[in-house]
Amino acid sequence: MLDELHEECGVIGIYNGDAVVRNITMGLYALQHRGQESAGFAISDGDKIRVRKSMGLVSTLLREHNIDEFDGFAGIGHVRYSTTGASTLANAQPILVSCKWGQIAVAHNGNITNANELRAEMEADGHIFQTTSDSEILLHEIARTQADDLGEAIKKAITKFTGSFCLVFISKDSMYVARDGFGFRPLSIARMGKAWCVASETCAFDLLGANYVRDIQPGEFLTITKNGLHSERFTQKDRLAHCIFEYIYFSRPDSKIFEQSCDKIRRKMGKQLAKECPVDADIVISVPDSATTAALGYAQASGIRFEIGLLRNHYVGRTFIDPTQNVREQKVKLKFNPIVGVLKNKRVCVVEDSIVRGTTLKILSKMLRDAGALEVHIRIASPPVAHPCFFGMDFPSQGELAASSMTPNEIAQMLGVESLGYLSVEGMKECTGEGENYCAACFDNDYPDYIGTDAQKTRCG
Amino acid sequence: MLDELHEECGVIGIYNGDAVVRNITMGLYALQHRGQESAGFAISDGDKIRVRKSMGLVSTLLREHNIDEFDGFAGIGHVRYSTTGASTLANAQPILVSCKWGQIAVAHNGNITNANELRAEMEADGHIFQTTSDSEILLHEIARTQADDLGEAIKKAITKFTGSFCLVFISKDSMYVARDGFGFRPLSIARMGKAWCVASETCAFDLLGANYVRDIQPGEFLTITKNGLHSERFTQKDRLAHCIFEYIYFSRPDSKIFEQSCDKIRRKMGKQLAKECPVDADIVISVPDSATTAALGYAQASGIRFEIGLLRNHYVGRTFIDPTQNVREQKVKLKFNPIVGVLKNKRVCVVEDSIVRGTTLKILSKMLRDAGALEVHIRIASPPVAHPCFFGMDFPSQGELAASSMTPNEIAQMLGVESLGYLSVEGMKECTGEGENYCAACFDNDYPDYIGTDAQKTRCG
Amino acid sequence: MLDELHEECGVIGIYNGDAVVRNITMGLYALQHRGQESAGFAISDGDKIRVRKSMGLVSTLLREHNIDEFDGFAGIGHVRYSTTGASTLANAQPILVSCKWGQIAVAHNGNITNANELRAEMEADGHIFQTTSDSEILLHEIARTQADDLGEAIKKAITKFTGSFCLVFISKDSMYVARDGFGFRPLSIARMGKAWCVASETCAFDLLGANYVRDIQPGEFLTITKNGLHSERFTQKDRLAHCIFEYIYFSRPDSKIFEQSCDKIRRKMGKQLAKECPVDADIVISVPDSATTAALGYAQASGIRFEIGLLRNHYVGRTFIDPTQNVREQKVKLKFNPIVGVLKNKRVCVVEDSIVRGTTLKILSKMLRDAGALEVHIRIASPPVAHPCFFGMDFPSQGELAASSMTPNEIAQMLGVESLGYLSVEGMKECTGEGENYCAACFDNDYPDYIGTDAQKTRCG
Amino acid sequence: MLDELHEECGVIGIYNGDAVVRNITMGLYALQHRGQESAGFAISDGDKIRVRKSMGLVSTLLREHNIDEFDGFAGIGHVRYSTTGASTLANAQPILVSCKWGQIAVAHNGNITNANELRAEMEADGHIFQTTSDSEILLHEIARTQADDLGEAIKKAITKFTGSFCLVFISKDSMYVARDGFGFRPLSIARMGKAWCVASETCAFDLLGANYVRDIQPGEFLTITKNGLHSERFTQKDRLAHCIFEYIYFSRPDSKIFEQSCDKIRRKMGKQLAKECPVDADIVISVPDSATTAALGYAQASGIRFEIGLLRNHYVGRTFIDPTQNVREQKVKLKFNPIVGVLKNKRVCVVEDSIVRGTTLKILSKMLRDAGALEVHIRIASPPVAHPCFFGMDFPSQGELAASSMTPNEIAQMLGVESLGYLSVEGMKECTGEGENYCAACFDNDYPDYIGTDAQKTRCG
Ligand SMILES: Nc1ncnc2c1ncn2[C@@H]1O[C@H](COP(=O)(O)OP(=O)(O)O)[C@@H](O)[C@H]1O
Ligand SMILES: Nc1ncnc2c1ncn2[C@@H]1O[C@H](COP(=O)(O)OP(=O)(O)O)[C@@H](O)[C@H]1O
Ligand SMILES: Nc1ncnc2c1ncn2[C@@H]1O[C@H](COP(=O)(O)OP(=O)(O)O)[C@@H](O)[C@H]1O
Ligand SMILES: Nc1ncnc2c1ncn2[C@@H]1O[C@H](COP(=O)(O)OP(=O)(O)O)[C@@H](O)[C@H]1O
Ligand code: SF4
Ligand code: SF4
Ligand code: SF4
Ligand code: SF4
Ligand SMILES: [Mg+2]
Ligand SMILES: [Mg+2]
Ligand SMILES: [Mg+2]
Ligand SMILES: [Mg+2]
Repeated sequence: MLDELHEECGVIGIYNGDAVVRNITMGLYALQHRGQESAGFAISDGDKIRVRKSMGLVSTLLREHNIDEFDGFAGIGHVRYSTTGASTLANAQPILVSCKWGQIAVAHNGNITNANELRAEMEADGHIFQTTSDSEILLHEIARTQADDLGEAIKKAITKFTGSFCLVFISKDSMYVARDGFGFRPLSIARMGKAWCVASETCAFDLLGANYVRDIQPGEFLTITKNGLHSERFTQKDRLAHCIFEYIYFSRPDSKIFEQSCDKIRRKMGKQLAKECPVDADIVISVPDSATTAALGYAQASGIRFEIGLLRNHYVGRTFIDPTQNVREQKVKLKFNPIVGVLKNKRVCVVEDSIVRGTTLKILSKMLRDAGALEVHIRIASPPVAHPCFFGMDFPSQGELAASSMTPNEIAQMLGVESLGYLSVEGMKECTGEGENYCAACFDNDYPDYIGTDAQKTRCG
Repeated sequence: MLDELHEECGVIGIYNGDAVVRNITMGLYALQHRGQESAGFAISDGDKIRVRKSMGLVSTLLREHNIDEFDGFAGIGHVRYSTTGASTLANAQPILVSCKWGQIAVAHNGNITNANELRAEMEADGHIFQTTSDSEILLHEIARTQADDLGEAIKKAITKFTGSFCLVFISKDSMYVARDGFGFRPLSIARMGKAWCVASETCAFDLLGANYVRDIQPGEFLTITKNGLHSERFTQKDRLAHCIFEYIYFSRPDSKIFEQSCDKIRRKMGKQLAKECPVDADIVISVPDSATTAALGYAQASGIRFEIGLLRNHYVGRTFIDPTQNVREQKVKLKFNPIVGVLKNKRVCVVEDSIVRGTTLKILSKMLRDAGALEVHIRIASPPVAHPCFFGMDFPSQGELAASSMTPNEIAQMLGVESLGYLSVEGMKECTGEGENYCAACFDNDYPDYIGTDAQKTRCG
Repeated sequence: MLDELHEECGVIGIYNGDAVVRNITMGLYALQHRGQESAGFAISDGDKIRVRKSMGLVSTLLREHNIDEFDGFAGIGHVRYSTTGASTLANAQPILVSCKWGQIAVAHNGNITNANELRAEMEADGHIFQTTSDSEILLHEIARTQADDLGEAIKKAITKFTGSFCLVFISKDSMYVARDGFGFRPLSIARMGKAWCVASETCAFDLLGANYVRDIQPGEFLTITKNGLHSERFTQKDRLAHCIFEYIYFSRPDSKIFEQSCDKIRRKMGKQLAKECPVDADIVISVPDSATTAALGYAQASGIRFEIGLLRNHYVGRTFIDPTQNVREQKVKLKFNPIVGVLKNKRVCVVEDSIVRGTTLKILSKMLRDAGALEVHIRIASPPVAHPCFFGMDFPSQGELAASSMTPNEIAQMLGVESLGYLSVEGMKECTGEGENYCAACFDNDYPDYIGTDAQKTRCG
Repeated sequence: MLDELHEECGVIGIYNGDAVVRNITMGLYALQHRGQESAGFAISDGDKIRVRKSMGLVSTLLREHNIDEFDGFAGIGHVRYSTTGASTLANAQPILVSCKWGQIAVAHNGNITNANELRAEMEADGHIFQTTSDSEILLHEIARTQADDLGEAIKKAITKFTGSFCLVFISKDSMYVARDGFGFRPLSIARMGKAWCVASETCAFDLLGANYVRDIQPGEFLTITKNGLHSERFTQKDRLAHCIFEYIYFSRPDSKIFEQSCDKIRRKMGKQLAKECPVDADIVISVPDSATTAALGYAQASGIRFEIGLLRNHYVGRTFIDPTQNVREQKVKLKFNPIVGVLKNKRVCVVEDSIVRGTTLKILSKMLRDAGALEVHIRIASPPVAHPCFFGMDFPSQGELAASSMTPNEIAQMLGVESLGYLSVEGMKECTGEGENYCAACFDNDYPDYIGTDAQKTRCG
């Protein structure tokens, strides 16, 4: 996919550590694929919390702020996704506020589906809003909750929120961690010497040399203080709803997601795809890098040779020359170049992780054919995406989803390819196992939780 | 004075104008002496309000944001003073929030003396704070006030605040203007074709070609809508308390302040000083530029020739090489250079507007002597500053005020000068006329209003 | 390899084209892997040449300069490699000078081996040098050459230079292209509608939609004017010396290099390696992305399954937190993460393109073992690098080259791996064919041309 | 004047000092009025020379480069004027080159009038030019001069140049200083402890606490080495030609220029003007700050009271909103505001230092009248400027000079004022004394030296 789907944020928190800001920003490097719009951290020295944020990548954050000036024992970090609209520094995270509980900073991954209703209610009650992010609404609710202490206030507050959330809070002396009862987004905890570390994906632990302990449980609430870690359950849903798309595209393959290796699941999906949608082809290639694992699985199961048929430019990032005509095509060409020697006179099976709009694949298919491919067969390691996500992914509007208005055959025709095959919903769930524990709503329209009253579905944090 | 006193903010608002952002930023250029820490504007196009702010001067604001992208019919602007502490973009103004009244942006000049109490109360009631500025507290109060409309809510809210405030608000379609009942800070209104313009100082009107109409009255509340301007009185104090320091130092001499020409009053003070503290000297010089008007008055009344004895460097701004030893002296030398030919073998009378710490004058006195002055006589066109300000000026702590612990004689000795003379409080008030209408608390310790419970005296907006 | 070897520059030139600067910068995106220190372009509008350069990537160049301001019919572009030393804007290219031939701009890829001697001579003759780049020396020589016109002067001048050079010059109305007689570095020409395009690698043509025509011949000199293209030979060496390392590492696999597909050669080297150094392993992985093609070849020839065992972070670029202890390890960890599920309990064969210092491989080997690999076998798709390059590559000093002081066995021990195998020189040359046409001096110490008198070997352009 | 005349550069050099870069940049602050386009320094640590430059003010130079990284015992600094044309970093100074004499850096104030001829000659001889500045031509000449050592080469080289130059060179171990034989531009030397300091104006010495020793003599050449200072004369002209405009406008009044106090001369010019062109007025005001000294002289001699009638904004710098209609007027209004109370119903005599185009004065005259002035009488403390300068000042083209095509009466009419009076050439020279030692060519068309063959008259350094 090329700028078609956006992960919506990555979070990290470290408590009782050394070189906390340095480790948080290192960890954010590992989570960078979850958000490239803005990056930030908040750190407590036990007395005061300070926050720094930048638009852009973690490398920009490091360039704009001298992190060695920030000393502290606990902190949180956040990367936020990039979309065209309300992308301003005001919406960057963490958000730091002061309230009756003292200073609180929060980093959020997910999407609150009743945010609009709650915000309207709070405005009616006399609250003011300085951002358009869910996190501010959360903090208002916490601030106005009657409770004995901050921990209790957070616990009470978050029960009012529907949708998905992985939350890491710090006060001047404690850290609080919460994950929604459905477990939509991944969140894990690790040990780093005497310190605790929580992060959206375990690849951050690998980089930091932290030892993965377990996933934060859906509905779990953690209180981490100088006295240690206390776990409790603040909610209990009658089902789980892990976002199955994390396996398909969003998470890094080297992460353990929902307690399974993402790479393993992705590979299984490739194999299952080969079983469901075989092809008569000379080589299997992937759209790198996100579909490579599935392609390897497909190649192995089908016995067709895996090849690198498309080269992915290492230097194509966010900065791009302003859009004139043919820009979309230009962008795809900048990112991918076909390797003629691999493709020429071959019947090519292209494995991609998913189809959202289909525009990129259309351009790529033509590129492959121009490079001499005799036939182009597309195999998608997930079912047709036909419905919007309200739980933390930024999809194009439903009308733009290829599968919402076209059959696979029509899509194949639009793409101009010999054949197109999708993984089935059942096949996909077989790969993950315990399929009932997963959300697959964007595929099967079965939304596990309240989905809100309007378009606020793409908001992160 | 050199970085000793700081004006605390300047505000401007334009309603129903053309090229609104351009005119607001032009006007901020004229108000720049009132604040150099940050600059910003908020503009409404009738439907939505947008805000942009930058750390630094108005020229930075213009460099960082393409103002031609901002179209609208009404807007406000703000410049904020520079102090070491909590100087971050978060505290810059205008502040824009969304609440039950819709979007509101505010620009504030002054200092709320019961801000801490109100903030504590609001925090107890469940509010969150993202800045340390008074304006946020004001907006919270407005948002939680029960009223029929925004105008009424603002009116009700501001009656709860003590201290000084000149406030300009915009909603998406209206502008609201309020000045505290004591009239501490200046605020005037002008006509600019079909548009209304309010500003802290009339020099902004001159630059914009706007016609001064009158001062906003102490306790006055203005509602400006498409239907025109509506004035009412929201409070009535039993006295006025215009800040007399506006005449002495803070305002630009070309402004009409409290309905009198600042330049005229400053000149009168110079003349009165000559009467009260005559001197036997060959020349009168000023510490340029702020004391020049008073020095001219002193020269005229005393009959001693006015000369330019100190040259003020045009290029010394905020950026400075980091402080090592002798930095203060270096800074003074960078800003001022004595003109030897003028000073050599002369008995010099130096007129300065005020003494805060006295450190700059001490360095200057030595410089003058090194340049050949036979005698150095200091004449101050205001009384000794011995008490802090709680109404919108940033003074050093009381302990640092020269006059809080030293007599004039002791100060003269500290400065190493032949003589030192101050204007009397009575003499000063004679110059302004109607002395009972002025605050002179930093001179005479007679505070007109509640001064709060702690150190929040230096906060602006 | 991780920051161990640096390609030394990429060049591009377009004559008689539309949107010339836009296309040049697009092309530079495709050549970015050849140099990340600085990027620049020079453009002629037929009357005047203008130049713009930036430190950093092409994306920085585009951010710092509004390329749409640059109109012209012919231009050249350059990317320069990054090394610690003399990396300043002054050394960035293209270099634009004015001389008796009018304005000339040049972009250079290669290394002049008699630059020091020539420079000393020129200094003795009264010339001044403002940079430390070869290109300036070239321009001096051209300027002082007696000739009938610029083209003749360039031709005469370049015969004095030894070493490697691919040069693209523009004057206000013409373009000149030259390649040294050994053909060390690649340079090709393509048609783009009515325009001519020359570039270091053909992947730039693919991106621009230009049609590859042929390679510029070793010793060829092209004059491109409004009247068309004129080719001649300015020198004839008794052998060719294409840099074989272009195939191994420097060029992009999707480029046609020295008239052969780089990808094909790389794959052959992988297969040949499998023949020469078989292994008893469960999986073959590569150090992505540069060794992936060779690894696929190795897997195919050996029949061992290819897997993705190391994930390469998409966001690790040049900006890095300043070096404290363990930085090298941290850097490797930031760039690569092992995929445990793939590696656990496996005997792993790791294919890498080359070993320079070996430090990265040492860290990676440990990472693989920590991830559960039972055995680690390293296979290198090139012979041991034991000698410096004087023809345009930036190698570490000879002492730092692992193979200059250690046998393969000793290196294996240093790396802490079960086995290490290198491709033989003969095997390597078999893969390219016509081995006598290649330089392989860094492997076999057989330098085809004069190698200069001192350390100026790493200079580019 | 408002952006009408530009001083062309200021130079400084320090040899054998401590904190050399810090002191050079401090000194450049004092010379900033001589050039605002770019600033730079070069420093030698005895072995190597390094250079840093920035576009903009000295404060930008300090922001962009951490000067504390630059250690050395000798260095030079430069500020360059701002004009629209060829203002690029390439032209900024100092220029550092390497040649047969080793590294040389140079800072230049002045204008070489035979630069074009020499450059053409050098190009014919095979030299290349990377900038359009005179300094590069100078360095070429030095590099190609046959001599025993660098000092001798410089001495020989500079005899070939006509026009004006104050030059400060450093090699790795020595400093060389030269001033043209006419002494057009000021250059002085001072002692700073064990160190030597040369600078364009003595105000730099005051800031550094350096003790003025004497002016560098016209035609003098200084060699400063570890062994001390050696002076000799490299040329002898039959007259002197100090730029009289330095007194009128360019130099800071607190500087000693051509061994006389600039302030004193300026004051005398004001008095002389009062004698030559008396006026019947109520007050004398100046166009601040450059004309204030002359205005004080005029007031003293005429007995008419001096007043501050125009306020000069402290914050109007180089950054300005892009020119649309009325921009010139807007710019003048931004810089100056009339003080109504001073002007109202007064017959005002306005003293200005000079008239170039007259556009600013025209706008100011209208502003004064709008502010209530009954009559406006302009008195200019210099004669009509009717001819271009070829010796280092940036004038508008001759056609734009008001006095080149209009009589004083016509100018008065154009300005819309009651009367206009200029100082006579004789009166002016009486003020300086020894009038034959001054250049006044822009007033009297009597050019002391060769003025070149074309438009290269405005080039600095
Ligand atoms: N090195 C890699 N190999 C395979 N998949 C990767 C790799 N890096 C990232 N991914 C997958 O690709 C997705 C998108 O990654 P990202 O770096 O944002 O690339 P893109 O620019 O292609 O969107 C990630 O969510 C992850 O699933
Ligand atoms: N041109 C001027 N002439 C006289 N007084 C001025 C002028 N400009 C500003 N002032 C006065 O000096 C005060 C400080 O002005 P500012 O520009 O901030 O200078 P400084 O850097 O000296 O503090 C202003 O509040 C005003 O009273
Ligand atoms: N997408 C790719 N796939 C395979 N090899 C690549 C790819 N991109 C670049 N390379 C090869 O890797 C080398 C280094 O590329 P570069 O982008 O600079 O990566 P690195 O950061 O690993 O040095 C290139 O010279 C080229 O041979
Ligand atoms: N503080 C001052 N007082 C009087 N004259 C000054 C002062 N500063 C500079 N000048 C004079 O004004 C000239 C222009 O100074 P500059 O700072 O560039 O101001 P401007 O922006 O008005 O051109 C200088 O060359 C000098 O002669
Ligand atoms: S709707 Fe799709 S993307 Fe969203 S949480 Fe469910 S599975 Fe994930
Ligand atoms: S205390 Fe002084 S500075 Fe403050 S408002 Fe009163 S007079 Fe003004
Ligand atoms: S020495 Fe090696 S890197 Fe250099 S040109 Fe020869 S083969 Fe290429
Ligand atoms: S022409 Fe005028 S400005 Fe130029 S040097 Fe002579 S007096 Fe000075
Ligand atoms: Mg993808
Ligand atoms: Mg002052
Ligand atoms: Mg590699
Ligand atoms: Mg002037």
